[in-house]
Amino acid sequence: MQALAIDIGGTKILAGLVAADGTIDGLVEVPTPAREGSGAILDAVLAAARAARAATSARPVACGVGTAGVVAPDGSIASATDLLRGWAGTPLRAALAAELGLEVRVLNDVHATGLCEALLGAARGHGSALVVAVGTGIGGAIVRNGMVEQGAHGIAGAIGHLPAPLRQGRICSCGVLDHVEAYASGPALEAEYRRRTGRPRGLRAIAAAGEAEARAVIAEGAAALGAVIGGANNLVDTSVIVIGGGVAGIGEAFLAPLRAGIAAEALGATRAVPVVPARFGARACLVGAGLLALA
Amino acid sequence: MQALAIDIGGTKILAGLVAADGTIDGLVEVPTPAREGSGAILDAVLAAARAARAATSARPVACGVGTAGVVAPDGSIASATDLLRGWAGTPLRAALAAELGLEVRVLNDVHATGLCEALLGAARGHGSALVVAVGTGIGGAIVRNGMVEQGAHGIAGAIGHLPAPLRQGRICSCGVLDHVEAYASGPALEAEYRRRTGRPRGLRAIAAAGEAEARAVIAEGAAALGAVIGGANNLVDTSVIVIGGGVAGIGEAFLAPLRAGIAAEALGATRAVPVVPARFGARACLVGAGLLALA
Repeated sequence: MQALAIDIGGTKILAGLVAADGTIDGLVEVPTPAREGSGAILDAVLAAARAARAATSARPVACGVGTAGVVAPDGSIASATDLLRGWAGTPLRAALAAELGLEVRVLNDVHATGLCEALLGAARGHGSALVVAVGTGIGGAIVRNGMVEQGAHGIAGAIGHLPAPLRQGRICSCGVLDHVEAYASGPALEAEYRRRTGRPRGLRAIAAAGEAEARAVIAEGAAALGAVIGGANNLVDTSVIVIGGGVAGIGEAFLAPLRAGIAAEALGATRAVPVVPARFGARACLVGAGLLALA
Repeated sequence: MQALAIDIGGTKILAGLVAADGTIDGLVEVPTPAREGSGAILDAVLAAARAARAATSARPVACGVGTAGVVAPDGSIASATDLLRGWAGTPLRAALAAELGLEVRVLNDVHATGLCEALLGAARGHGSALVVAVGTGIGGAIVRNGMVEQGAHGIAGAIGHLPAPLRQGRICSCGVLDHVEAYASGPALEAEYRRRTGRPRGLRAIAAAGEAEARAVIAEGAAALGAVIGGANNLVDTSVIVIGGGVAGIGEAFLAPLRAGIAAEALGATRAVPVVPARFGARACLVGAGLLALA
């Protein structure tokens, strides 16, 4: 049994047929016409979906979508950043259901990624998980009993938007002062490194350089995020914490101070909660979308 | 239809028959033999429960309990503070079920209070709620679709144990530095007032005094807690925030800066989430325990 899965991102759209074990058939990738409006994006999504279906003889039982933007309970796009111009307001679920003749379920892309890690990835076998994605922004997903918590407004899991324990007056991407995303995202680490050294460098180069300033910048950002995750897990109390995204990909230079920060905040029995790296990479959202449709 | 409801606190035990509309029949109150160990506490609970049953002709369909301490999934006490000596490890659900001949469900007392506010109190009619109790400590409950999230270790909702945006090196009741409970609980506000003025006063007296120092202490603590609640609601994304407990009982001197702090952190659509005072007082845990059993 397979589901037609679609991942709608700011730069590309993926489609494929996903089975319950996470295997993908007929994978198709097309660029996202991100500046051309909702209709053009929908057309590209449908073209990718049809190409994926045509590439295999399997007949999908349903369709699952992971998409950039905040997803409303009816599967429409409640809001989106300007990366996807005109995407807000798109009746995504209804439009795809009408065109594809399948039942369609829609999740935010970070939520779909979290579902993939919970069901097949690093949190497999745990009853609940807090999945954190650290990249250009910092997002997350809370998964319990195989289901992602979407929240009352579709933003549940937004762990980047909690107050940081550092108070340097940094402005978060959301406009608020001193959210932790402004201290531990990729751009935040790059900006802080540049501020201290005068050298404009990408995160990979900073991590590879590994001199004292580089290590300090990475460790301080990771510790701040760790404190927030540790405190947050006192609130949501999951059985495992999964860390993914490009910044986490730096490895132990980031993960070690992150783990220490989490452990320092933990209350009672949550001290024993494992903190593990994500297992799925660039296909996590696509696979999670497929699992959503198969559930 | 009524449930036998029991509230086990550090100083007293309540029992009564609770109906789905929250009315209480046969209310009994006995002191908690808090220093005498688990067996003595259980005996007192059973005596109160039997007295409540004897006081009415109604026959309870089940029994619900709200108790101090962390509740394990099997309804035993996973841990408890020294306020209830020997309470940790008590097989509460099993012991009561055997003695009372009823199905028994057990929740932590803050969780039971949150359930009461969600189903019958300030959050009634909302799909989800973050209920915060600000008193000697700061606890909370996350309720979705009429069910309390207990979490993997029974501590979900522990919003007092998130990092505060103030970093003055205060030690939280849990031993960690600078959790928000160390800035906004009743004892924290009293200690800060004494530090600034030299005057040892209880919170009611501080609030009643109302001079500049008193207002500042209350407002700064409330603003810190508001920032944490606002950030936390970006993570859990509920449809209403309920504030209860003795400190919230101060009124607008605490609630106004708290609301401002919440609003300042809120992401997107969560800015419109109402922040409302709790409606139930000292009976909330008992009623919530009854509703748990009737669910």
